[in-house]
Amino acid sequence: MTKFVRGLLEEWRRLELPLRNARIIVAVSGGADSTALLLALSELVTTKKFAVELLAAHMDHGLRGKVSREDAAWVARLAGQLNHEAVVTRVNIKQRATNAGDNLEQAARRARYDFLAKAARNAGAQMVLTGHTMDDQAETMMLNLLRGSGVEGLAGIEPVRVLDDREGTLLVRPLLNWARHADTEKYCAERGIVPRNDEMNLDEKYSRVRVRRRLLPLMETFNGRVVEALSRTARLLREDSSALSAAADHLLEQATEKTTAENRTNLLNLDAKNKMPLLCVEVLATAAPALRRRALRRWIAQGRGDVRRLELVHLLAVEKLLSGARGGRVIELPGGTRVSRKRGVLEFHAVSPGPTKRAGQGERAVSAALQPDSPAR
Amino acid sequence: MTKFVRGLLEEWRRLELPLRNARIIVAVSGGADSTALLLALSELVTTKKFAVELLAAHMDHGLRGKVSREDAAWVARLAGQLNHEAVVTRVNIKQRATNAGDNLEQAARRARYDFLAKAARNAGAQMVLTGHTMDDQAETMMLNLLRGSGVEGLAGIEPVRVLDDREGTLLVRPLLNWARHADTEKYCAERGIVPRNDEMNLDEKYSRVRVRRRLLPLMETFNGRVVEALSRTARLLREDSSALSAAADHLLEQATEKTTAENRTNLLNLDAKNKMPLLCVEVLATAAPALRRRALRRWIAQGRGDVRRLELVHLLAVEKLLSGARGGRVIELPGGTRVSRKRGVLEFHAVSPGPTKRAGQGERAVSAALQPDSPAR
Repeated sequence: MTKFVRGLLEEWRRLELPLRNARIIVAVSGGADSTALLLALSELVTTKKFAVELLAAHMDHGLRGKVSREDAAWVARLAGQLNHEAVVTRVNIKQRATNAGDNLEQAARRARYDFLAKAARNAGAQMVLTGHTMDDQAETMMLNLLRGSGVEGLAGIEPVRVLDDREGTLLVRPLLNWARHADTEKYCAERGIVPRNDEMNLDEKYSRVRVRRRLLPLMETFNGRVVEALSRTARLLREDSSALSAAADHLLEQATEKTTAENRTNLLNLDAKNKMPLLCVEVLATAAPALRRRALRRWIAQGRGDVRRLELVHLLAVEKLLSGARGGRVIELPGGTRVSRKRGVLEFHAVSPGPTKRAGQGERAVSAALQPDSPAR
Repeated sequence: MTKFVRGLLEEWRRLELPLRNARIIVAVSGGADSTALLLALSELVTTKKFAVELLAAHMDHGLRGKVSREDAAWVARLAGQLNHEAVVTRVNIKQRATNAGDNLEQAARRARYDFLAKAARNAGAQMVLTGHTMDDQAETMMLNLLRGSGVEGLAGIEPVRVLDDREGTLLVRPLLNWARHADTEKYCAERGIVPRNDEMNLDEKYSRVRVRRRLLPLMETFNGRVVEALSRTARLLREDSSALSAAADHLLEQATEKTTAENRTNLLNLDAKNKMPLLCVEVLATAAPALRRRALRRWIAQGRGDVRRLELVHLLAVEKLLSGARGGRVIELPGGTRVSRKRGVLEFHAVSPGPTKRAGQGERAVSAALQPDSPAR
């Protein structure tokens, strides 16, 4: 067994992934990373280490004309040679990006994961694997750092996450924690396979490509193992993020329970109009800011259905409601929802508060949607 | 009032620093940052915004011969012109570094803060201020990221911390959260003062200088306000770090209390030999890894008196003691201390366990001091 295959097997065990009785989709672009992943998994099946069924899935982004089609055909042929099924689809990403108002990268990403989730449903697969390596992790972290992310962004890509809630399909990156891009290239060469080149990987108009070709090489002059160092940081921050998130959930419960105890007239502690719990100002005001902000974010996400266009500046504005003894203030959030403070509680309003509320105690509207990149709609 | 002085005043209020009745040491190297800080504070005193007493403190590192002496004389002269006292000292850093086995930067840093704490004690000052800016913050964060730090390292420099436990002296960086190095240069020019240049700031043999002159400029090609973005990240991570640390303290208490309840025979839950609390394996094993690791680190620090040469690898080894039902295992830490698991508790040993313990249940010594940069002594 080569070093690469051994590495994959070790990580597989570490992640406690199934060794038998599973159908697994492998997302294969035809590049070295995903090709090496398919080849290595296939080797583990052939040598009877694994008793799982592999299916290769490829999405032709339709961005590079004839070359895109050749990539798709190449992946299908490789899968066939290895005795695995292949699912190939073609999507007009440019059209999708225009329709959704996304940039090309966002649109491609969204289309790809939609396709993979659908392929998993159709095949009855429990897992989808991608070939992301430590290099992708380092790039993602630096891109997030460059825009001033907090822990969640700096924690980078997760090795395992849920891809499809309804089906419980997992998205797994079994190379992320240990393999370098150079390792996947080497393993492809050992297997006598020449992976496909995507010339977009060389186009420096993309930030990710400049991070890969300019920033990380400069960082390597400081620490030759900086990619490994970043990977370690990502792992630590993932654990921190998960602990903070659990503590914030707990705080949200406490803030809700406290209100319930104090407002017994308020049945089940739900605001009759929008079924959103009221939050106790005192519990939030005395909590650690890092937990308070996360708890408020989660509560607002519940009320709005998502956190689209919700920026730090909005959370800071809602936090300001907690200071002082005075109620009767309102914060407007992007998309028309609002948060108000009334005596000792925070209240979420899915729609504009009605006239009874407006007759309140010197209510004052404070627009928090000030970020240039989050236009109010 | 210039924009710079207004910025300082705003931050002063935000940090809730005293506007009157305080003696304050300002650490002045003679560079633009610390000179601008002294000039701006002096302006606030002259214009009666502040009623505090300022003292300039300068340490001559003795690294640059005649130039070092000239810097010291320049700072004393500037302080005199502004009607403030100056404390100047000269230290042989090279000698200190050799004696302590530190590198020059570490030795200079240590000597500087020792000197400032002493100057504060002698002057009866409540605060020591330094001129660190957002640029220093960005450099520190990147240096820590390059070596794979966790949240604590990425949170960078603290704007306020305790400098001297006994005296309660604070170390405050009132430029850190908002001022750029270019702002301090501009303000010095506005005041007609030409700050001193330290040519070590141009010497690219220092990683910090290369971060400043190579890495951050490249990062600015991605985001022109990357230094501000990093500063925001640092602030978020500081809050995260503080919430995690409080939660870890709570976990440590819980792990200790639980043991007390279960081992009532063990008076006050202290191991008679070394007065260190025993920790309940079950409480730690079911805790979030991010909190568990911090709790163990704190507990080990209590036992050893410090965390010198304690690396992540040691904590991981101690964590492994928690898995499975089996006790009777020992982890050796650098410096001769040990942690053992005995039934359902972790025990800290300041010295080698005596023969009664060695007669235990298949005890096995596992050396965790494997890091090349942490030689056992």
